[in-house]
Amino acid sequence: MLGIALLGSGRMAHVYGPKINNHPDLRLVSVFNPNESSAEKAVERYGGTASSDLGAVLADPAVDAVIIATPTNTHLEYVEAAAKAGKPIYCEKPLDLTLERVDRCLAALKANPVPFMLGFNRRFDPDVSALQAAVRRGEIGPLTFLMSWSREPSPPPIEYVKRSGGYFVDATIHDIDLICWIAGERPEEVYATGSCLFDPAIGEAGDADATMTVLKMPSGCIAHVNNSRSCAYGFDQRLEAFGRDGMIQTTNQRDDNLIRWDGTRTEAREPLKHFFLERYDASFHHALDEFSRAIAEGRPPSAAQEDGRTALAIALACERSRLEGKAIRPDY
Amino acid sequence: MLGIALLGSGRMAHVYGPKINNHPDLRLVSVFNPNESSAEKAVERYGGTASSDLGAVLADPAVDAVIIATPTNTHLEYVEAAAKAGKPIYCEKPLDLTLERVDRCLAALKANPVPFMLGFNRRFDPDVSALQAAVRRGEIGPLTFLMSWSREPSPPPIEYVKRSGGYFVDATIHDIDLICWIAGERPEEVYATGSCLFDPAIGEAGDADATMTVLKMPSGCIAHVNNSRSCAYGFDQRLEAFGRDGMIQTTNQRDDNLIRWDGTRTEAREPLKHFFLERYDASFHHALDEFSRAIAEGRPPSAAQEDGRTALAIALACERSRLEGKAIRPDY
Amino acid sequence: MLGIALLGSGRMAHVYGPKINNHPDLRLVSVFNPNESSAEKAVERYGGTASSDLGAVLADPAVDAVIIATPTNTHLEYVEAAAKAGKPIYCEKPLDLTLERVDRCLAALKANPVPFMLGFNRRFDPDVSALQAAVRRGEIGPLTFLMSWSREPSPPPIEYVKRSGGYFVDATIHDIDLICWIAGERPEEVYATGSCLFDPAIGEAGDADATMTVLKMPSGCIAHVNNSRSCAYGFDQRLEAFGRDGMIQTTNQRDDNLIRWDGTRTEAREPLKHFFLERYDASFHHALDEFSRAIAEGRPPSAAQEDGRTALAIALACERSRLEGKAIRPDY
Amino acid sequence: MLGIALLGSGRMAHVYGPKINNHPDLRLVSVFNPNESSAEKAVERYGGTASSDLGAVLADPAVDAVIIATPTNTHLEYVEAAAKAGKPIYCEKPLDLTLERVDRCLAALKANPVPFMLGFNRRFDPDVSALQAAVRRGEIGPLTFLMSWSREPSPPPIEYVKRSGGYFVDATIHDIDLICWIAGERPEEVYATGSCLFDPAIGEAGDADATMTVLKMPSGCIAHVNNSRSCAYGFDQRLEAFGRDGMIQTTNQRDDNLIRWDGTRTEAREPLKHFFLERYDASFHHALDEFSRAIAEGRPPSAAQEDGRTALAIALACERSRLEGKAIRPDY
Repeated sequence: MLGIALLGSGRMAHVYGPKINNHPDLRLVSVFNPNESSAEKAVERYGGTASSDLGAVLADPAVDAVIIATPTNTHLEYVEAAAKAGKPIYCEKPLDLTLERVDRCLAALKANPVPFMLGFNRRFDPDVSALQAAVRRGEIGPLTFLMSWSREPSPPPIEYVKRSGGYFVDATIHDIDLICWIAGERPEEVYATGSCLFDPAIGEAGDADATMTVLKMPSGCIAHVNNSRSCAYGFDQRLEAFGRDGMIQTTNQRDDNLIRWDGTRTEAREPLKHFFLERYDASFHHALDEFSRAIAEGRPPSAAQEDGRTALAIALACERSRLEGKAIRPDY
Repeated sequence: MLGIALLGSGRMAHVYGPKINNHPDLRLVSVFNPNESSAEKAVERYGGTASSDLGAVLADPAVDAVIIATPTNTHLEYVEAAAKAGKPIYCEKPLDLTLERVDRCLAALKANPVPFMLGFNRRFDPDVSALQAAVRRGEIGPLTFLMSWSREPSPPPIEYVKRSGGYFVDATIHDIDLICWIAGERPEEVYATGSCLFDPAIGEAGDADATMTVLKMPSGCIAHVNNSRSCAYGFDQRLEAFGRDGMIQTTNQRDDNLIRWDGTRTEAREPLKHFFLERYDASFHHALDEFSRAIAEGRPPSAAQEDGRTALAIALACERSRLEGKAIRPDY
Repeated sequence: MLGIALLGSGRMAHVYGPKINNHPDLRLVSVFNPNESSAEKAVERYGGTASSDLGAVLADPAVDAVIIATPTNTHLEYVEAAAKAGKPIYCEKPLDLTLERVDRCLAALKANPVPFMLGFNRRFDPDVSALQAAVRRGEIGPLTFLMSWSREPSPPPIEYVKRSGGYFVDATIHDIDLICWIAGERPEEVYATGSCLFDPAIGEAGDADATMTVLKMPSGCIAHVNNSRSCAYGFDQRLEAFGRDGMIQTTNQRDDNLIRWDGTRTEAREPLKHFFLERYDASFHHALDEFSRAIAEGRPPSAAQEDGRTALAIALACERSRLEGKAIRPDY
Repeated sequence: MLGIALLGSGRMAHVYGPKINNHPDLRLVSVFNPNESSAEKAVERYGGTASSDLGAVLADPAVDAVIIATPTNTHLEYVEAAAKAGKPIYCEKPLDLTLERVDRCLAALKANPVPFMLGFNRRFDPDVSALQAAVRRGEIGPLTFLMSWSREPSPPPIEYVKRSGGYFVDATIHDIDLICWIAGERPEEVYATGSCLFDPAIGEAGDADATMTVLKMPSGCIAHVNNSRSCAYGFDQRLEAFGRDGMIQTTNQRDDNLIRWDGTRTEAREPLKHFFLERYDASFHHALDEFSRAIAEGRPPSAAQEDGRTALAIALACERSRLEGKAIRPDY
């Protein structure tokens, strides 16, 4: 049984709270928020003790590990503190918005080497991991193309967009991580282009809400990502791996699996699951499971800090490519 | 090149007219109708000579074969005449509505053995014949179940229903023929039940407009047919062959193969092809092709008069079963 | 929190054990088996106290309700005892194999009216219940046909078959219950036929391993069931509701949702989930949830003893129909 | 009835020969090849008169129009000659491999304005044209993304590759034409990258056999093409149009539409149609139909010489982008 301190009590903390409680090997010990009344609200729903004193939380011997689900700009400080306290860390993605600050995280973890896992939850979705395993065991031979679709139901509030680090760092980073993880290599060059088609405020803020990205791998495999901040039929999430010997695709998901036929449409399914909380619900459970097992088994968890740095370097190269109109080599 | 006399100039004649003209080995020589002005209208569209004199038509040396597309109650007379004249015969289904009259057809063909083919066109649909071939070559092992769906877009005029011989003889007979042809055997016992759910006039006429039929085969294979005179989404035509080693299904067809996603439905296809002329368009061509090749190759065509008798005997047993509420052994 | 006594420690008890433990409102208090060492094995895995003394178990005030997961021939005795003890009962299906003994259960429940639920778990499968809800709210208008497929991966041991009450009572009873529940009515007449195609020992025991059943409803809706004790591609479970205004189908399930393309097959999915424990895993949880909520809300649970009697009467009529070769009116 | 002179008697001429003969409004008058014995072989199969004298062919009053199906490097010469002779022209794509020579074609057609159609046959595929029509009538709102897959079964002979103008000019040009035609606009900038993964000789010749292309449209719509010279499961041809209000996709095609289930795979279809002659068979007929109707109706055919120039300019920009590693503005 692993005693957990949950850092943060905002949206992502409310994703992890119930998952911690439903996991047979995890127990919520405390919820930290500098604003203690916010922590108390989470404690009311998920149990544990509320605290605004991080030092006390990390000093608590009942706390075996921390889950960092706070705003991105606080990750560095909390990773440093938790690492110093010797507590294994599960940290929401992205690690940070700049390579300079990510490198400070990596240095902190090198100085105090605790088990560390980055919340690239999509790797732990059963369909995604089944595709990755099939590709890695050579089921379709060497990869020719690897394609990822990620289209969100509707644009987030402009305030969210402004502090998100840009669409590539905020969203494409998931597709980028999956592509590197599935392909087993990282791109030597990327090209990205974007448009603002849905919320003019996003364009005014210098960001895009519809992008396409091409990633050229050392093996010759070429990857593609398309991201849209709007999608009429729900949260469209697809992967297509095309190799020398065949192709494997994932399927989209709905709340209801019925097939409907009527006078206007046949073989119709309902719209897709609404957004990532619904679509990737199981993946958060499996991610925590990987974290807990890796600690129990004394091995590094699957999505490490270096994976976070790689994905960020690529996402930043995408953003540069979009702005400069040319292919960019990521700064690994 | 086979010179064809088309007997009849009604609905089915207008199906065969263009198919004769588009077939490289067939040539329309004459169109016969006791009402010569009706024959003339067909001739205007498809060529040939109009005639109300059957004797003259059959005596014409340019006529190498006849296609009988007249009302069912005239089939016997025309089969007898054409057989006597030594002309190969393609006759629309059903051969007749009673076994007594069908047996007279069979006797006429025995007395004057000309090549004879019954218009069980669905056997010649590419998907149906691919399924039959796969089953016959043992792809799924011995059959356990064989299922056929045939749901029509809307009830026909009550006058048509009244002279159709009943729903089993009019429509189920197609499913019955396919089942016997695919299974390679004929049922030893059938059970059928029906309801009148769409047009009360059909019920008042003693017929049903929604039926289910069970056919028990000597091998132990059990077949199922469901027929409906109404279907909101078009002409639903499916076959499912379930054998010891697997299953093979046909798919429905549409004019447009696009897949549509929007805010209300995903992966949606348009409604099905409207009715049999649209769905089985190609099958009429392939059926005439079989007729013409069989004559050229000096072998009996695929759907013989005996197949017609078998299917009628089964359809009549279905009707008796529906009326008597018990399983019936067909009168082969 | 509902304290549960689990009666039985065989196969079905091992289905319910983990579900009880995973349910937030249920707590396993005791496991009863006349053979106490068997009960002890279940207790080692799921907790609670093992006992071979039913009286003591039922007298325990910590026991709020019982789950009967014992062999069918003991259901009557345990239902009577639990009802007398005033404990709410969840009883595995079928209630019993004869109407006479089922009526004794009903009498016992009338004399001691405790909340009672029969384990027709398939009603609680999310896809099945979504289809039922869509049909009941009129989404496709009045039903024309209702079809159910239930094909098992391989025949059970002949000893199981011999004490199962026959294929209709053992397996078709699930399809029958779903049909009555979805259609909202019960058949006035049924016809069934069967073959022995997979295990000759089943035929020698007088049973069938491949059956088709037709159920004629008072509304005119006609239902169909096909059951097979063998299926090459897994546990095939489908429902098709065809109504005046459209059609709704459920889909089959697999462990892995990937779509595979290679040199021999395209758009291929892996075989289906193996059998009912895998396919209907979630339904057992939802069934226990319905049981626990109904008790909490003071209302009768969804699948009542009368539903069990109805389904058994229909299954027995199917068996009679198969043996007598004619349609049979169930003995409600 | 339009008398046709077919210029060329190689592979593409053998595509057009049967289509001319099957078209009710076209008649093959002559087949031209500088090598008369090659023309004679075509004439033996499709009729008409063989000739190695282009002047005589074009002077023949029975020739109402020409179809140019000769090697690409002869197109310019034959277009100039046919235009001077006042004959309507249907010319296989590409018009030529350089913009300079294409501009000479355009000048010749400006000097002698005859009806001219370029063989962008895929526009005339029923599924492609249905998708284009749905997008153009606004069914999914303004386009966000437009994606095209074109994966060939296996690499062509290296000699073909060497004189093909490169993969973009040889193959991507079809996808490019469809994208411009469906989107109703042409890209302001393109980016392309490629690998050599299948035939090293292709790489040695400076070409790629797996490419991805991004096309940025003035409206903000972003288009994607992926092309592969190898595909294990047949000729993979897909289009996906994603707009503000929904998505429309085309489906792949097979010879056999059966769905197969067995112990290793379920819902499986057979591999795709082999290559373009099989997949786009109908489109050649519809393309000739458009040509013949446009002449009859006195209007310009759908795929004009300017469309050919646009597509070539884009394909050449793709090639430059691949070689220079940066986005390129096409030279319209």
